[in-house]
Amino acid sequence: MSKVRVHISVSLDGYVAGPNQSMENPLGEGGERLHDWVVQLKAWREPSGMEGGEENASSPVVREEYANVGAEIMGRGKFGAPSRGPWGDEPWQGWWGEDPPFHKPVFVLTHHEREPLTLSDTTFTFVTDGIEFALELAKQAAGDKDVFIGGGAKTINEYLAVGLVDELELHVVPILLGGGERLFEGVGPDVRLELLRVVEAPGVAHLKYRVVN
Amino acid sequence: MSKVRVHISVSLDGYVAGPNQSMENPLGEGGERLHDWVVQLKAWREPSGMEGGEENASSPVVREEYANVGAEIMGRGKFGAPSRGPWGDEPWQGWWGEDPPFHKPVFVLTHHEREPLTLSDTTFTFVTDGIEFALELAKQAAGDKDVFIGGGAKTINEYLAVGLVDELELHVVPILLGGGERLFEGVGPDVRLELLRVVEAPGVAHLKYRVVN
Repeated sequence: MSKVRVHISVSLDGYVAGPNQSMENPLGEGGERLHDWVVQLKAWREPSGMEGGEENASSPVVREEYANVGAEIMGRGKFGAPSRGPWGDEPWQGWWGEDPPFHKPVFVLTHHEREPLTLSDTTFTFVTDGIEFALELAKQAAGDKDVFIGGGAKTINEYLAVGLVDELELHVVPILLGGGERLFEGVGPDVRLELLRVVEAPGVAHLKYRVVN
Repeated sequence: MSKVRVHISVSLDGYVAGPNQSMENPLGEGGERLHDWVVQLKAWREPSGMEGGEENASSPVVREEYANVGAEIMGRGKFGAPSRGPWGDEPWQGWWGEDPPFHKPVFVLTHHEREPLTLSDTTFTFVTDGIEFALELAKQAAGDKDVFIGGGAKTINEYLAVGLVDELELHVVPILLGGGERLFEGVGPDVRLELLRVVEAPGVAHLKYRVVN
């Protein structure tokens, strides 16, 4: 059955991005370190058309994460630009250049209407009618495949809080960010989780949960 | 070599006690659930003189945690009473009755002077001269053995922030508390950690770190 999945790198103090996010520092101060464990992996480099990379205990975790995903939902924060507000006459095209690494339909949550944007084989559809409607669109686009909630923290927290996530995997990175975008903010105690799997890997612990809705 | 160690159960959203701690609810609302994984274990029950209990993947983790500990430091919050302030004429004797489960010297951080309290084979010494001095006393008392920083969050965070902890183990419990005493609050990004070990067990993931000082 098609699932709604979250997989995200998080600091030991619970942040998925550091403080003071900006154009120069899209993941905030220190936030890039959240992804040190993954960017060296062949499993991460290959889908982005990059050469080389290593294999370690994280490799099967990353391959499983990327497999069978039919659509992604992301917040305006992840798509950018950091300035927010109306899109303007020369609207922001995302962080990823002419060939974004998604290769699937992406639904961007926003308060500001905009026509869809196609870059290579990725089409970004801008959704102003809320998270439930975005999920309906994403499920339709994904067909039998899963829907990936790509972040940031606010978007993930909103889907968790209303019970619309089936699986949640945390890549717990042994750093403290001391501030930034906090996972689980406002989600509260009613969401029940069940530990599915733990994987120890170099520089990261992968904790996978089923969300009991 | 003698180490300073922290081992603590933490919710997935980073709390070591729930909101609204009180006399009736010393661990706050929902906080008791943080210890569901451990109270059923023989490894936990035996040192407290309780019968029965099971063995599972958490058992060796708990036995290792309890082994070779020569002294414990705790905050006034953990010792109680919740009301705080001066000790008064009939001072609070702790939560644990006539035979506390420590069986070793315990140093209690407090702003209010008080004579030592001995209950069975546990002596509580009340330290008003700050966390560094308390650690000196505890190390002296522990000799070759390790010093355990027993909590609560504030005490652990203070020791982490000044670089006085050698090992940190988180027992990550798949619950959300939505508020309460937060681990790592105010510790900041300068503390470096190195993942030592991950253990998957029923209802809990054990993540052990070396703190690089």
